[in-house]
This record gives sequence, structure tokens and C-alpha cells, in this order.
Amino acid sequence: MANIASGSTVGFVGLGAMGLPMAKNLVARGFSVRGYDLRQSAREALVAEGGRGAASVAEAAREADALVLMVVNATQAEAALFEQGGLEALPQGAAVVLMSTCPPAAVEKLAERVTGAGRRFVDAPVSGGMVGAIAGSLTIMAAAPAATLAAVRPVLDALGSKVVHVGEHPGQGAMVKTVNQLLCGVHIAVAAEALSLAGKVGIDREVMLDVLGGSAASSWMLRDRGPRMIQAQPEVTSAVDIFVKDLGIVLEAGRDTKAALPLAAVAHQMFLATSGRGDGAADDSQVIRAYQALNRQSTTENR
Amino acid sequence: MANIASGSTVGFVGLGAMGLPMAKNLVARGFSVRGYDLRQSAREALVAEGGRGAASVAEAAREADALVLMVVNATQAEAALFEQGGLEALPQGAAVVLMSTCPPAAVEKLAERVTGAGRRFVDAPVSGGMVGAIAGSLTIMAAAPAATLAAVRPVLDALGSKVVHVGEHPGQGAMVKTVNQLLCGVHIAVAAEALSLAGKVGIDREVMLDVLGGSAASSWMLRDRGPRMIQAQPEVTSAVDIFVKDLGIVLEAGRDTKAALPLAAVAHQMFLATSGRGDGAADDSQVIRAYQALNRQSTTENR
Repeated sequence: MANIASGSTVGFVGLGAMGLPMAKNLVARGFSVRGYDLRQSAREALVAEGGRGAASVAEAAREADALVLMVVNATQAEAALFEQGGLEALPQGAAVVLMSTCPPAAVEKLAERVTGAGRRFVDAPVSGGMVGAIAGSLTIMAAAPAATLAAVRPVLDALGSKVVHVGEHPGQGAMVKTVNQLLCGVHIAVAAEALSLAGKVGIDREVMLDVLGGSAASSWMLRDRGPRMIQAQPEVTSAVDIFVKDLGIVLEAGRDTKAALPLAAVAHQMFLATSGRGDGAADDSQVIRAYQALNRQSTTENR
Repeated sequence: MANIASGSTVGFVGLGAMGLPMAKNLVARGFSVRGYDLRQSAREALVAEGGRGAASVAEAAREADALVLMVVNATQAEAALFEQGGLEALPQGAAVVLMSTCPPAAVEKLAERVTGAGRRFVDAPVSGGMVGAIAGSLTIMAAAPAATLAAVRPVLDALGSKVVHVGEHPGQGAMVKTVNQLLCGVHIAVAAEALSLAGKVGIDREVMLDVLGGSAASSWMLRDRGPRMIQAQPEVTSAVDIFVKDLGIVLEAGRDTKAALPLAAVAHQMFLATSGRGDGAADDSQVIRAYQALNRQSTTENR
């Protein structure tokens, strides 16, 4: 399989908050990008950047050297490939590159069907969020046979600044991403637990964040989400429901492998409760609202 | 109260892994230091650096402008002040500076007795560990009336690079330290949970740490303890039993203020289990052994 270098055709499915800037970065690197999204406005945004819009998943896949999937979840990825004609339209030997966060077991099954049909498969979830997607500085956790990875490498290099080959088998990338999300989710929830306690006992939480941000208690999430936890209505950079889903995937991986994950399980409960209280679309820092409810604090006390 | 500047006499009780280098830093800044520790070897180590050894807590406190306590816990601090004659020997108006990690409620009570006897009190726990103690770069979370803090400031500046005035009331420093330890303890335990899952499903944990260390999943503890979690017998930099104690203080603060701290409670269980299995003196990264036991992994699988 020749390298899918600049000039090659790449089908791109899912032009959302992450997908659109990723597709734009492929255009900027000289790939011929055909993007599909249900929303016409998203397709038009790609066209404005020099990409082409596709009327269906199948049209995006036709004659493509690689088909990148940046959809919401494994169910959407399956639908795109097997129900909307993506796999059938994709030429033999071309590569499906699945970049969404999906359960490892679902990725394994999906990969089997794809490779069974004579196409290649790269399990390549990302971290770095919208900021990384826009800057092309994502971390990409790629699992695929070495030759397949080498072939799609130019595509991945256009999207991320750190491409780590985590294993030969599809599902291993998803597992690394799962472990990554376990840490992210628990770090957000424990920052909320800490700031909720600080607020309850009357410690100034700005002072608290100042002390914690420079100590051994620090985490990337504390520094990023902490300041938004002491705002009442912060901007939404990533929603509570994303972690309801992602910690759900973490626990599903734990069930599949029979591994007890007690901290992840508790953190998931706090995100679930936040969503259940009607705040699923709020910024994920607002998991602190579940702690406030639990500990009978008013929002004012917490500011 | 005049500033306790260089040249002043400072009594120092508790010349352990943290206390000895702290006392040395006071000597280096020109304070006349009288150090007490049960172990004669510790007193001799201070004398070798230009300090003076004291035969008792009372002797360390006599004629001192400040009495620094860097003992193991609140019980030892109480004993030093009230049973071993420290408070009585200390001149009127001089300051007790409590730097050990103690429960906020215990610090409040202790402070009342000290100020009731006409001495000043500074609640000043630290973070930064042995490395910070040696370098004089500790973070100090000081709670005291502003005038008292100003008076002892030169002492604190000799020990730490960041002195944060967190409140006027003794106990508030201890509470900030408590919240700090909540985060530290949960971050260590969740790093073990994440690496245990990675090991169980056959992900290379060196690769895993490489990915996580540079992503939004990162924490100070993951970067520091993570590499030691994948060693079988790592050097002990801080023992499991320290977090059995410190997360115990966190939960005690939660009980005192009636605040639910679900993640801290679960993390405490994992440290307790590790200690209960006979590994209380092991490096705290070895909380991963409780996860290995829980998930029936051999140590080999985890390397």
C-alpha cells in the first residue's frame, strides 16, 4: 500500500467541533478532502476552506485512499460504514481511520468487519480537544499493523503533533484513550470535590487554586477546569454528557475485562447525577453542582 | 511584636526527613537554632551544621522567639507543648509555628490553648516534600492574624519560596493542606487504577505513561509516581502509611464539617488495603499493589 501522501483523496465523516477543523487541516496540507456531515452548514464550512462536500457517506468514501471517521460514537461509526454504504464504496485496500472515542470491544468488532472486507483499519483516537484539533496538535493513539500505520502516517501527521504507535491490534488505541479518559474524568470530579470542601469551610477558593496549581496536588484538569468551577455560568468547552459517555466507556471496558475501577465508578456517578439534575449540556466543570447539591451548598457559598 | 529576623533564636522540634533540612536552612539564614529530637543522631546532625542541640523540648523553647514544630502528627505536637513543657518554657509573646500536617479541628483547639497562655500561634503546614525542604522551596499555607504572620515571616521565608496567607484563623492553613492532600491522595490512587487497567489489558505501560504525561490526563503525581508504579521495588520517597494518615485527616475534616467526599473515601480504602496487606512502609506508588490484588494480576503482568 503506497503512502497516502499530500494530493491523495481523503473522505471525512463527521464535521463537528473536532471534525471540521481536522478536515480543514487536511485541506491545508494539500489533501483532496470530501467531507460528509448531516448538517449542510458544516459541509458548506468545509467547502469555504477548499474542501468538497459529499451528499452521503458513500460519496465521501468513493475513490478515497482513506476514510476518516470523527463521529460521535461507535454506533454512528457502524452506521456510516455498514448501513450508509461507506465500506462498500471505499476501494479495496484503502484504510478506514476511526478517530472517535469508542469502547475498545466495539472497535475490535468493527475492525474485523472492515479487514474481513479487504479494507485496512486504523484505530486512532485523539486527545487535545478542540484547541488541539484547530492547531493540528492532537495526540493520536494509533493501533494498527506497522505497514498500515506507515501508509496513513501523512494523514495523521496533518492532524496531530504526537502520533504514538500503541500496538498492532485495533482496540488497543481505544483502550489507551479509555485509560486517558479514566484519568481525565476522575481528575475533573476530584477537583470539584476539593473545591466544594474548600467552599463549604469558608476557604477563599481563588487562594486555594493559587496554592494547588503550583503544588504536588496539581493536575492539567485542575488548572484548566478549576477556575471555571468557581464561575456560576462558565462557557461550555466540553459538556458534562461527554464524560457521562466517556466514563461509561471506561466502565464498560472494566466490565469486559473484569477489572474493578472503584474511583472511575464513583466519578461516573457524580457526572451522571449532574446530568440527571438537568445540567448535561453545561460545561463539565459543573460536575461541582452535584457536590453542591450533595453537601447542601448554595451556588453563592461556592463563589 | 518585633520581626523574628536573622539572629533571632528559634527552637525547632522534630528533626526528621523534613525537619532536619528545614532547621539547617534556618541556620544558613543566620538564625540561632536550638533543635530537639528524640534521636541523638538527629541532634548531632544539626550541630554539625552550626545549630545547637537541646536536651528537651523545654530547652529548645527557652528564650526562643519562635518555636517551630515539625513533628509527625497533632498528638506529638500536643505532647511537645503541653506535656514536655514547650509552652511553659516559651517566653510570653513568642510564637508557636505548627508546620506538621494535622486535622484542622485539632489545630484550632491547640491554637486556643497557646493563645490563651499569652503566646502567638501560626498554623503553617507545608507542601513540597523532602526535595522542597532541602531546597528551601516549600509552599507554606499560613493562617494567623496579619501582624503575627508579619513577625514570623522571616522564619517562613527561610523555609519556603511561596508563603500564602490563607486566612486569619488557625485551622485554615490545616484545611488548605487537607484539601491539598485530598487531591494528592486521589491522584496517586487513580494513577494506580489507570496503570493497573492498562497492565491487565496488555497495553505497554511505558508507552501509556508517555501518552498520558503529555495529555490532559496528566497530573503532578502521575508524572512523579507513575514511573515508580511500574517498578517492583521502587525507592521509598514517601510511604503508603503517610497517605493512610493524610486521607484519614481529609475524611475527619469531612466528618467534622458534614461534607461527603466520595472519591477521597474510596482512595483511602485503597491505601488502607495496601497497608493492611503489609506494604505500609513501601513507597506510596505501591498502592498499585492493592489494585493488582483486587484484579488478580501478578506483579510480572504489571511490569
